[in-house]
Amino acid sequence: MNDSTRERLLETGRKLFSSNGFRGAAVREITREANANLGAVTYHFGSKAGLYRAVLDRVFRTLAERIEAAAAEPAPPEGRLRRIVSTLFAFFADVPDAPQLFLRELASGGALPEPVVPYLRRNLAAISGVIRDGQEQGAFRTMAPQLVAFSLVAQTVWFAVMGRHLHIVTGDTTPPEQLALAMERHIADLLVAALQPSEDQP
Amino acid sequence: MNDSTRERLLETGRKLFSSNGFRGAAVREITREANANLGAVTYHFGSKAGLYRAVLDRVFRTLAERIEAAAAEPAPPEGRLRRIVSTLFAFFADVPDAPQLFLRELASGGALPEPVVPYLRRNLAAISGVIRDGQEQGAFRTMAPQLVAFSLVAQTVWFAVMGRHLHIVTGDTTPPEQLALAMERHIADLLVAALQPSEDQP
Repeated sequence: MNDSTRERLLETGRKLFSSNGFRGAAVREITREANANLGAVTYHFGSKAGLYRAVLDRVFRTLAERIEAAAAEPAPPEGRLRRIVSTLFAFFADVPDAPQLFLRELASGGALPEPVVPYLRRNLAAISGVIRDGQEQGAFRTMAPQLVAFSLVAQTVWFAVMGRHLHIVTGDTTPPEQLALAMERHIADLLVAALQPSEDQP
Repeated sequence: MNDSTRERLLETGRKLFSSNGFRGAAVREITREANANLGAVTYHFGSKAGLYRAVLDRVFRTLAERIEAAAAEPAPPEGRLRRIVSTLFAFFADVPDAPQLFLRELASGGALPEPVVPYLRRNLAAISGVIRDGQEQGAFRTMAPQLVAFSLVAQTVWFAVMGRHLHIVTGDTTPPEQLALAMERHIADLLVAALQPSEDQP
């Protein structure tokens, strides 16, 4: 029973922290929605801050593990780069509230939540590693790997944040899933095209 | 005197809406910080919602006008594309809290604030227009102009949001202004490289 209470608190915590922010999500509301008693957050996580850390840890660990798996696939760099883009799209389809979990804090001028940092570092290392491999093999042009990794993540995360609002701006009536597929392909194609070795490069 | 009260309310409103969100910014706090009487928001803007609309209108109208000016410069498409990227970077250096103004609402699952929409449409039209010109002149490869415009904006906005936190992830100690310059150049170079006509394309 305790394990499933813990699970329910993590789920409800993720939902409420992402929609209301850390400060806006009350322990009373989390425990009520998780069908747990008021002391359950303290019992399982020490405090509301402990639950928030545990939620961030789970969400961003999952993402980092999936990105590392995609980056380590036995495929040429272009294929691995495309897999990383797909992995990010699949992740945000699975956990659409993931960006909100830290965006709310950033949007109010706060710091990047500390539990997220090690996972973002792992993502950066995995993605840059694929770019670097491609450059060493002569398949990709010279371009700072960390900056290319930023470009990949920026476009994917911004689509996770803005995707469902884009039709209001574009007037495009493509259904959401199809738009996500088109965007996933576009981002991968754009990166691959940008990384094509140019003739005037050594 | 009234004009300067109006100006101070717009300034203070922008500051407090971006740091606390629309709901989190109280009229009492706005008027106090703007050194105005409690009725000034109603007098000048009808309501807090009216002030919020006026703040968004001013910020995003300025951005749209600057992007349209950059897009209309008498220069080849590549130069205009680079100018648009610089314009966005300059704008976010001037008004660093601009993304927060609507990000907070998006981050809590809200809609894109309605006053922002016409300006985002103008930005999209201006940027896509430059891509289309380049494609018609054979200077850019075929790639959906709206999606390329999304890639440009996504990277720039995401840097405006994340830029000051990146060093925590990258361990890079480049001073903020230099990092912004490097990123500006990278985003422009990446887009130009991606748009290079490929040999196997008609």
